[in-house]
Order: sequence, then C-alpha cells, then structure tokens
Amino acid sequence: MPYDGAVVLLTGLPSSGKSTLARQAHERLLLAGRPAEVLDGDEVRRQFWPELTLSSADRSANLARIAALAALLARNGVLVLAAAIAPYSDDRKAMRVLLEGSGFRFHEVHVATPLEVCIERDVKGLYARHRRGEISKLTGVDAVYEVPAAPELTIDTSRMSVEDSVSVLLKGALGNAFEPAADR
Amino acid sequence: MPYDGAVVLLTGLPSSGKSTLARQAHERLLLAGRPAEVLDGDEVRRQFWPELTLSSADRSANLARIAALAALLARNGVLVLAAAIAPYSDDRKAMRVLLEGSGFRFHEVHVATPLEVCIERDVKGLYARHRRGEISKLTGVDAVYEVPAAPELTIDTSRMSVEDSVSVLLKGALGNAFEPAADR
Repeated sequence: MPYDGAVVLLTGLPSSGKSTLARQAHERLLLAGRPAEVLDGDEVRRQFWPELTLSSADRSANLARIAALAALLARNGVLVLAAAIAPYSDDRKAMRVLLEGSGFRFHEVHVATPLEVCIERDVKGLYARHRRGEISKLTGVDAVYEVPAAPELTIDTSRMSVEDSVSVLLKGALGNAFEPAADR
Repeated sequence: MPYDGAVVLLTGLPSSGKSTLARQAHERLLLAGRPAEVLDGDEVRRQFWPELTLSSADRSANLARIAALAALLARNGVLVLAAAIAPYSDDRKAMRVLLEGSGFRFHEVHVATPLEVCIERDVKGLYARHRRGEISKLTGVDAVYEVPAAPELTIDTSRMSVEDSVSVLLKGALGNAFEPAADR
C-alpha cells in the first residue's frame, strides 16, 4: 500500500463547519495526490442505510457503520475524513477503539464553533425549523452534545478562516499522512 | 492511483462457489500486492444494512448498495470481488451501468454450477432448510434466477478445481488488472 490509511472524525454541532472543512481538506489532499474520501454522516446515511432515523440508537448505529466503512477504506490506503455530529462520547470512543485496534491512526477533531454562530449560519435550516416547532431533538438545542474530553484537535471556525482551519487540520491532525509510507 | 479500480461480480445460485472463488482470488491478488476486497452479499448486508430482508425489492437494494460501495473502493484503486446471488438481470445491468459509467472495468462472472451440485454441497444448509419447509423463496428452487445472457465469463465449478477456476477468473475476467496502471 503506497499510503497508510488514517481516519479523521470531525465532530460538532449542526452548521459548525464539519462538512466544509472535510470537503476542503479532501480537495487539498487529492491535489497533493493523496487518496482520500469524505464520509459525510447525512449523505452516507441517505446513500447506504436510509432506514436509520435520528433516534439515539440509530445515531449510534450510523456512526458505528461509518467507522466500519472507514476501516474498509483505510485498509486500502485511504485517508478518511468522516464529518458527523457524533454527539455521544461512547460512540466516538467505540470508533477510536475499532480503528486504532485495526492499526490505523485516528484523530478526533472537535469543530467547536459556538452555538450562537452555528444558529446564525444555519446552513441546512435546522435551527429555524426547530424554532418553528417543525423538528425536535436538535443537537445542541434540546438534544445533548457530549463535548469531547480529549480530542486531538479543537477548531473554532468562528475565529479562523476556512483556509486556515483546513491548514491546521491537515498539519495538526494528520501530521505526515500526506507522505507515501515508503518515504518516511 | 497506482492501480486502476475494477469490479468483478460473481453471480450464481446458493452454494455455486461464488464466495469460495472470490476469497481465493482475493488471497492471490493480495499476495501479488494488488489492493483487493471481497464484498460478500450476505456479509455486507449483515454488517452494513441488516434492515434489508430477502424480499425481491430488498435484494435489488442490496445489490445497488453493493454497487455503490464497490464504486467507492474502485475509485481508490481497489479491485472489488462482489459475490452475490444477484438473481435479477435488471439489477446486474444497473450495477454495470453505474460502474462502467464511472469509468471502471466491470466483469460479470456467471458461476454456473448445476443446481444438483449446489444442492449436494449446500454449504449453508439452505436447500435442506427449504426441503424441511423452514424457508421458502430459495433462488433456483422456488425463486427465479435469471441466467446472465452475456456474462464476460462463465465458470462451472463442478467441472474444474477451485484452483483452476480462480486462475480462469483472474486471467479471463481481470486481464491486466494485476499490473500497476503505470506499467501498461
């Protein structure tokens, strides 16, 4: 395998910037010739297991399946950027255990944009729909987000440009993951 | 990408030898340093979308999701060996359209072991359970298997050793898929 597989989990509130960071990092990685994939929690659910709902149990199942999919890609040398709210510590821990136990580097990145900024961005209109009473159990509002206790990296996208955030992500969280295994 | 992705679909009756061929071919490919994965229809369903049943609609959905997963792997240079009954022509056609449309080579391999031999092998005890009336709608018995009209390759594992079948599979169906893209 020319590259070592690795997995980065971007976890945080809705509209915190997870997907944006993942996509931009992905673009830079591909430009650098580094095999990489984004697994976006919502998209992956829709494409692969649309039966899963947003209940607590199904959110856990979604992250567990994303972890299994990430392992399948990582063992083929892919750097996986998983962007998912992933609100529960235990689920994130299980993901780490699976991936580190399989010999891959795993980096938990807390996209710690403050709730007020997330509400203002409201990319998918979720906060607005919640305000109108159309949805409930919105993470960060009336559903718990268990803040990561010891993430490898914390990024507050309200205090840094997307470009800088991506640089921090790629340098801080991935280290030498750019380089072919043989060159290290 | 050092290798071109490609997808081989091994289709046939239960106990026809699909999974055995896929696993042995996988082993030889890995020994040759060629990134490869087996996607076994039953295992993938259990691991990733256990909500799907064995109804016609869910069998179609299973193959469609396997195709999407295969595309994700193939675009990272993986040679995917998908072993699935895949009883419906339209579903296999859709898989071909997706993968060829994405620029990957796709090979349909009909594992055409005669029903009598499959019944005799009965690796998973399905034919016996059907005889005892414990299950119904068993492909090849009381559920249709639409025989591939123009597969890239047909292998009858009752007339050839596993080793020879794997050689035929790797040479006939994969051609130069072993070699790094740059060497061709």
